[in-house]
Amino acid sequence: MKLYEIYAGEIAELIRTQVLRPGERLPSVRQARLQRKISASTIFEAYNLLEARGLIVCRPRSGYYVRTGKRAQAPEPHTAPPASDSRPVAISDLVFEVLGSTRNLGLVPLGSAFVSPRLFPLERLAKGLTPQMKRLAPEQFTAHLTAGDAQLRRQIALRYGTAGVQVAPDELVVTNGAMEALNLALQVLTEPGDVVVVESPTFYAALQALERLKLRAVEVATHPRTGVDLASLEAVLRQHPVKACWCMPNFQNPLGSLMPVENKRALVSLLARHQVPLIEDDVYGELYFGHQRPPPAKAFDTDGLVLHCSSFSKSLAPGYRVGWVAAGRFAQAIERTKLMTSLSTAIPSQLAIAAYLETGGLDRHLRQLRLRLEDNAASALRAIAQHFPKGTKVTRPQGGYFLWVELPAHIDALAVHQHAAQMGISVAPGHLFSADQRFHHHLRLNYGFDDAQALTRALQALAGCISG
Amino acid sequence: MKLYEIYAGEIAELIRTQVLRPGERLPSVRQARLQRKISASTIFEAYNLLEARGLIVCRPRSGYYVRTGKRAQAPEPHTAPPASDSRPVAISDLVFEVLGSTRNLGLVPLGSAFVSPRLFPLERLAKGLTPQMKRLAPEQFTAHLTAGDAQLRRQIALRYGTAGVQVAPDELVVTNGAMEALNLALQVLTEPGDVVVVESPTFYAALQALERLKLRAVEVATHPRTGVDLASLEAVLRQHPVKACWCMPNFQNPLGSLMPVENKRALVSLLARHQVPLIEDDVYGELYFGHQRPPPAKAFDTDGLVLHCSSFSKSLAPGYRVGWVAAGRFAQAIERTKLMTSLSTAIPSQLAIAAYLETGGLDRHLRQLRLRLEDNAASALRAIAQHFPKGTKVTRPQGGYFLWVELPAHIDALAVHQHAAQMGISVAPGHLFSADQRFHHHLRLNYGFDDAQALTRALQALAGCISG
Repeated sequence: MKLYEIYAGEIAELIRTQVLRPGERLPSVRQARLQRKISASTIFEAYNLLEARGLIVCRPRSGYYVRTGKRAQAPEPHTAPPASDSRPVAISDLVFEVLGSTRNLGLVPLGSAFVSPRLFPLERLAKGLTPQMKRLAPEQFTAHLTAGDAQLRRQIALRYGTAGVQVAPDELVVTNGAMEALNLALQVLTEPGDVVVVESPTFYAALQALERLKLRAVEVATHPRTGVDLASLEAVLRQHPVKACWCMPNFQNPLGSLMPVENKRALVSLLARHQVPLIEDDVYGELYFGHQRPPPAKAFDTDGLVLHCSSFSKSLAPGYRVGWVAAGRFAQAIERTKLMTSLSTAIPSQLAIAAYLETGGLDRHLRQLRLRLEDNAASALRAIAQHFPKGTKVTRPQGGYFLWVELPAHIDALAVHQHAAQMGISVAPGHLFSADQRFHHHLRLNYGFDDAQALTRALQALAGCISG
Repeated sequence: MKLYEIYAGEIAELIRTQVLRPGERLPSVRQARLQRKISASTIFEAYNLLEARGLIVCRPRSGYYVRTGKRAQAPEPHTAPPASDSRPVAISDLVFEVLGSTRNLGLVPLGSAFVSPRLFPLERLAKGLTPQMKRLAPEQFTAHLTAGDAQLRRQIALRYGTAGVQVAPDELVVTNGAMEALNLALQVLTEPGDVVVVESPTFYAALQALERLKLRAVEVATHPRTGVDLASLEAVLRQHPVKACWCMPNFQNPLGSLMPVENKRALVSLLARHQVPLIEDDVYGELYFGHQRPPPAKAFDTDGLVLHCSSFSKSLAPGYRVGWVAAGRFAQAIERTKLMTSLSTAIPSQLAIAAYLETGGLDRHLRQLRLRLEDNAASALRAIAQHFPKGTKVTRPQGGYFLWVELPAHIDALAVHQHAAQMGISVAPGHLFSADQRFHHHLRLNYGFDDAQALTRALQALAGCISG
């Protein structure tokens, strides 16, 4: 990271934490230069970056000021409580129908579940593949058909360590992406007909997994900013024989919500009291804005009841299909189920990622990726405030790459989806994110573009599909 | 393949088909040189190879002769009919216990399920990884999160074509090894409590999959030479509400049996009459001895009821975890289930294998591998005849790399397994291959070694564990 980016990051953090308040004047270039002993050009570059990110404004012959809230901002949506009954899930057909029509490469990918792969160090990852595989002795090929490459598991365990979570390499099972990790967790914890708690709205793949395994879903109210509502969850746990709870405490898909640390601690303890395992989907945990990785709920697990699932697909290596689960007391059961369903995870992918992690390049890559996503979020919020119909509400994500947009209630998200597809734009209609499909005027929009201007243009064009 | 290998292959085929009979004299070197217009040294090399493979003997000052059956040969085992009821499966714990103790790299791998990786073109495969991934445009990374790389699917479809089976690339779903393919097939076809037919003995992973999915198994008598007994199968189909039939018509694991073409045709037609889908596990189909790939049952499928599963793990690329299923009328259901359980198969593995196939190196590699396995089989049969206790029976495989050994009935295969492990040798005890564990004096032995002498020594040492 360059010096001006570091300095800009510090200022951004001061603004985020309201140490610098809206309308307040930033240090002049001369002041900053003297205080921080950095060059004027570095400070100019930092201020230009912050301006481009919409955090500050320049008033000619006056200086730089923290942007005030006066500019139009769409309000935030509220919690939309679900019904409290458990029900079988039947959503897969709709999901496949919608996803099938959005998979077209020609579409502008506002509906995609993935960050633009241009934002990943694909070249450097690829470079490791051949040398790593050549170095592997033939005997090691069959020896690797296990729960995961030892080096990779050690690296993952180290990363947990620096995030303040104690995970032994032996507790880890390397999987074919987080998707397999989550499915293994469900398979180990449930039998057909069992009740599983999910957030509401929730990631459609969670609903599909429940449908496939013939499980019943109870949806729990989830706040767009702070995540799952603990009082509602407690009521559900009292009312239903819940076998597992599937949650995304960090940057939930689709809401982008981030559970406060105290809520995470309370979530783990509440579930432990009911002896309900938590399947924690944490694939976006590394994509935080600000300075510190939010801890996973796993950090507060003293009973081995949290199965923490994550992957490199969303933060480093799309298509390599390397995820993992740290499954606490269920580690052996997960390992066995993995061996029985797909034996092991591809060795070339595992070794290339392990080699990349060894070199220590991940943190630098993630810093750049986070800045880019944070910038994009600001651009997207501005474009929505400017172009979307009056009455639109939108989340304020603190990480990840999704916005959850609540359109005026008379607008049908599926119609928007169809109209947008004709205009060359994909969106993810809210229908996909709940078993009862009550989010019928909502959209999940992906701002993980590599080109912020293209993002702004796409949102403007999408606005035309909504009002039209 | 070198000229002497080609010539040796021709002679071997004449012996196999009994055109050259036991005891008969081969053409002298001078005759052969004149008839075939190849050099004397080539002929000597070919004869030496055939002698090493145990097919011919050299009588000094007389010439080369087809080996007669006079040398000791252990007899073949017979069919061991199972009970005809359906039953839940509970074998996983035993399988994991036994496999766990055989996974030790230090053990001589007679119990392994894998050919020695030294027999695979690991270097050449590795070479393709980095260039292929560098060539992939970033946009293609998300576009590849589908049922499989288009190039790879085309190559697999071409291979079906040359084997006389019509499979469109669209019918193929690329999976994380054949294990995932087989599991997906079971998941698509069954619900918990359903009845599935398996061979007897059968591959323990099939039993584990049934156990995991809470299915009931009906075992069908399977002949060590000709595979599943069709009359028994028909009786089972009349008696039970069978939802699927899991078979390995080519070189069954553990028997090594090969269903005659007419039996395969009859199998497909029998199942079609009962509208029961066939899950065909054909991972060893490319490892035939002789000159032509035995067709899969899929070749006779006119109703789209055969789900043909295979992989590159046993024949080309262990650890890359690339398998597939050609699922007939179930193709879309399989594709969706794959997307829901593990999204897609690792791209680096898919592209490296596709590139390897493009260059046309596979057939040459397979020819060498088959010759090696055929040689090894002959060595192993000789060692068993010489060293194993009187009363031992053993199969005569026509492909693959397993021998199925029936020891005298008073010998406990689990005791042999334990004793052998102490002596540094792994075996797969017969207990693992049936839900009722009636193969308690049987062993599956892997002859896929890269060193035939080490194989012979291992079998000799194992014999000591049996009698001792």
